[in-house]
Order: sequence, then C-alpha cells, then structure tokens
Amino acid sequence: MTWLVTGGAGYIGSHVVRAFAADGIDVVVIDDLSSGKPEFLVEGVPFVEANLLDSAATRKALEGVSGVVHLAGYKYAGVSVEKPMHTYTQNISAMVSLLNEMAAAGVANIVFSSSAGVYGTPKDEVVTEQTAPDPQSPYGETKQVGEWLLADQAKAVPLNYTALRYFNVVGSGDPKVYDASPYNLFPIVCNLLTQGKIPQIYGTDHPTPDGTSIKDYVHVADLARAHVAAARALDSGKTLEPVYNLGSGTGTSVREIMDAARRVTGIDFTPTEGPRRPGDPSRVVASGELAARDLEWKNTHTVDEMFASAWEAWPKG
Amino acid sequence: MTWLVTGGAGYIGSHVVRAFAADGIDVVVIDDLSSGKPEFLVEGVPFVEANLLDSAATRKALEGVSGVVHLAGYKYAGVSVEKPMHTYTQNISAMVSLLNEMAAAGVANIVFSSSAGVYGTPKDEVVTEQTAPDPQSPYGETKQVGEWLLADQAKAVPLNYTALRYFNVVGSGDPKVYDASPYNLFPIVCNLLTQGKIPQIYGTDHPTPDGTSIKDYVHVADLARAHVAAARALDSGKTLEPVYNLGSGTGTSVREIMDAARRVTGIDFTPTEGPRRPGDPSRVVASGELAARDLEWKNTHTVDEMFASAWEAWPKG
Repeated sequence: MTWLVTGGAGYIGSHVVRAFAADGIDVVVIDDLSSGKPEFLVEGVPFVEANLLDSAATRKALEGVSGVVHLAGYKYAGVSVEKPMHTYTQNISAMVSLLNEMAAAGVANIVFSSSAGVYGTPKDEVVTEQTAPDPQSPYGETKQVGEWLLADQAKAVPLNYTALRYFNVVGSGDPKVYDASPYNLFPIVCNLLTQGKIPQIYGTDHPTPDGTSIKDYVHVADLARAHVAAARALDSGKTLEPVYNLGSGTGTSVREIMDAARRVTGIDFTPTEGPRRPGDPSRVVASGELAARDLEWKNTHTVDEMFASAWEAWPKG
Repeated sequence: MTWLVTGGAGYIGSHVVRAFAADGIDVVVIDDLSSGKPEFLVEGVPFVEANLLDSAATRKALEGVSGVVHLAGYKYAGVSVEKPMHTYTQNISAMVSLLNEMAAAGVANIVFSSSAGVYGTPKDEVVTEQTAPDPQSPYGETKQVGEWLLADQAKAVPLNYTALRYFNVVGSGDPKVYDASPYNLFPIVCNLLTQGKIPQIYGTDHPTPDGTSIKDYVHVADLARAHVAAARALDSGKTLEPVYNLGSGTGTSVREIMDAARRVTGIDFTPTEGPRRPGDPSRVVASGELAARDLEWKNTHTVDEMFASAWEAWPKG
C-alpha cells in the first residue's frame, strides 16, 4: 500500500505524510514548493518537485500508487479574492489534470482536502455536512468545485473518494513543522509575540459570552490521522460519505485563544481591540458526528495544547 | 466598436455574429471548429481557428477588441456526465485562460453564454434569476462556475459583465445554419422526419394538460439580439445584472411541438410514445422580466415559426 500525497511539503501535508508513515503506509510526495518548504519533507520519503499541471511528472509520481491524498493548491482564502484566476488554475485545472492522470494510471482512491470555506458564512451555528454550501471566496468556490469534480468523475470512471472539510487547523505535531501562513490566527499571534508586539482582537461586540467570535479549531496531527483512516477505508473498498467535517465540535473564542497564548508563552500581554472584520461570523462550530462514526475520529487536543505545540514549532529568530 | 465572439462558428455563435453585423458592430471570431462548422462562418468576418487554451491565439484575437461574447465550450449537457474532466477543461480552464488574456489586453467587457442548466431540475415552475442554482451535470456546473469566475474576476480587475442563461434555443435565422446537436429535440425531430422515421414522445403521464412535458423555447435569432443589447449596454458603461434568463415566458409541450412539426412539414405522423426519462421535469418556464426590463428583449417567434425555420435550414439529403 503506497499513497501519493500532493502538497506533501506543506504544513498540513507534512503532518499527513508523518501520519501515514507512522501507520506503516508507504508515501510518495509531489509538491511544487510554491508554499511548501523543503525542510518540511520527511526523510526517506520519495519526493517529486513539480506542479500537478505537469502531467508527465504527475504520471511518474503515480507509479505504483493505490491512492492519492490531494492537498496541493492555492490555500489563502482571503487573498484568493485578489487572484481568482490563479486560484482556479492551481485548484481546479490542476485537479482536473490529476484526476485525468489517475484515471489513465488506474488509481481509483482519493482523499480530497476540502474546507469549511465551502459553507461561506453559515447561518447554522452548528455546521453539519447537510448545511448548504455557500462559498464566499474564489478559494471556497474551488473547494466546492473540487467536491463536484470527484462526484462527477466517480460517475464516469471507477473512483472511491471522500472530501474532508477542514475547520481551523492549528498546532504542530513536529517541532520543525509550523503553519507559516501570514493570514491565520495562530501564526499571526506567534509572530507578533516573537517580535515583542501585541496581538489584536477584531470584534469584541459579538453576541457571545466574551464578545469575541467563536470558531472551531483542530490540531493538525489529529487532522492528519483522519486522512489515514479515510485512506485505509477506501483502500479496503469501503464506501465513505462524499464529505466529512473535521472539527472539534467545540467552539473557542478569540479571547480564549489569547488567554491560552498568555499561559503557554508566559508572555503577559493584553490584546488590543479593533472593530469586527466584515463577514466574520460570531459563532461557527462543526458537527463532527459523521467523522466520529465512519473514521473513528475526533480532535484530542485542548486549546492550550494546540497553542503550545504551535508556539514550540514557531521559528524564533 | 469591435467584439470578439468565441465559438462564433457554432449554431448560436453564428447567429450572434450575424446579429452584431446587422447592428453595425465589427466582429472577430475565434473557434476551434470542434463542434462549430466552417460553413457557419460569416463571410468577411475575421476568423482565428484556435482553442481558447491557446493563449497566443487568444491574445491575437483580442487585438483591438472592446468586448467578448463568450460562447465557446463543450455544450452537450447529457454527455458531459461521461466526460466530466473534458467538460471542465473546455469550459473552465479555457475561460480562466480567456479572462487572463482579457485582463492582460485591457478588454473589460464580457457577455457570457450561460444556461438554464444551472438550475438543474428546478422546483419552481416559473424560473426567475432568484431561483436557487442546483446544477445536475458537469455541463451545468461549469456554467455556474463560469458565472462565479466573472463575479470573482470583476472584484480583482476592471470587468463589466453579464451572463445570459439560455433556455431551449431552437430554430434558425439563416437557411444555411442549423442546430446539428444530436441531443436536442428540434434536430432529432428534423432528422427522423428527413429519414422517413417517426419521432417519439418520452413521457405522456406528466401532470400537464396533454400529459407531455412543458419547456420554454426561444428562437436563436431572438436570442442573438439579446447579446447585441447586452454588448451595447456594457460598451457604453452601463452596469447590467450578473445574470439574465433568456426564455419566452411561455411553455410549450412536446406534443405541441410535434403538432407544429406536422403542420410545418406537411408530413402526417403520429409520434410513438415511451416512458418518461429520469429527471425530466414536467414544466419549466422562464421568467423573462429582467431581460425585458434591461435589454428590451423578448422572444418574438411562435412555435410554428421556430419549427419552420429549423426545418427549412435542416440539411435534407
């Protein structure tokens, strides 16, 4: 059993590769290093440096593989608004090319990295897989379209698939691997604290107990395990649901995260406060019932553990 | 004022080119002739034979152009189920490439050929632009995604746009130009009658007055005029709605079309009858109020006129 991990040099991809290796599954990585980092690659894992739009390289990477975890893509939801065509090329044209090459190679299993971004700003406080998709950015749209591509392709060629809709992925399972995104809360806080600056809270008048917005955070190492469970299920011929939410089922407010950051780092700070950002929902929490049922999966880390692992891995000067 | 018509050698595209020319607007055509026909090209209109994925050819075709009518694409909704990746490549990757080249060339107006296919099988009998999209085929999905691409790109670069959701386009405005699709009702009936065969009605137990399903048909020459109105509006800086239905607002049953075919052709036949086809809705009629208001547009042909023009243009041996 060998699986290909696209985007395997990225923050999440690197954890997925580690989780597969830890479970005794051979892995190959393809990544163009546009946002992935060479130092996130796992030693001994075969690596093809290429973009999925390079069909020949993809074909080579698929040799001897029984399934694919597809994480490669343009991942910055907010900035995707400024680069919609780039986002579609990297996330849709590349996935079409991958699915074509998989069909040609007879590789019939795929676990797709989707996102809570498909829900946009959900009206439901507890988001289930039945909550209507309503993507609000090119990034969110491409994740929705990626799910359509899978369902469509499965009607045309043999394909077992599932899509995992990640909520906010944080923390680290390896001291060398961290979320380097300049747009996510945990790295923003780590970065500011490292520089001796004070993090800011945007929006303190939400209708929540402490006034700050509540989101659902999952530890990246837990998230990675869900991919192993999905891959093993598909590889053994089991049919999975087309989509699973991966969330903790618990909401954490921005203020609670700041409190965790203070406890974990020992840096005594009081966040500055600014106005709400447009479109930021007050409370979004995932229902993780389906993933618990079919993948025997749940988030196992507390917020303090999540922040501590992020902080430990964060490069400090 | 010069506009580029992508897919201008197709059945609808050819009519659009004629409508622009008749209105005194210069036109350039780009078409890869994968389903368009050289004999549908209008004499004297510059023609680039290329697929939109050929960026250099697209760039050349865009020279001196102030807007684009984008009709090129894979158009067979039913068959798209068997060729989902091909459909996405031709309809999405190609449109992304076109929008990139338009941005590079500073061409900021586009009228997009969308489809009632974005609605899937609508629950509403009268479909307005507010009816929730629910595409049911790769083709319908790509039309929905095409509309997203326009809205996304308009947030990133200067772009005036609208999308026209066609209902069932039939008839002919030129005796040399006909709908050659083997999947559409009018050409199927024309083809069978030409061969001395009897057309079949699928489904006679719908809850409609005559038991056959009711759809909304528009004459292709009327449809083409809507593109001219939209192009003139955008070219003069007017903002249009993101989408307009193009339908007659009137439903016609399959049996009524068979009756029209009998009257028009003089061939006395009684259609055979078969079971409903899965997913075929009983009644779908467009509201054309928005197009009437903003484009001063309506369908001006009766069903007999539509069938007569289709029959006249249909190649008979």
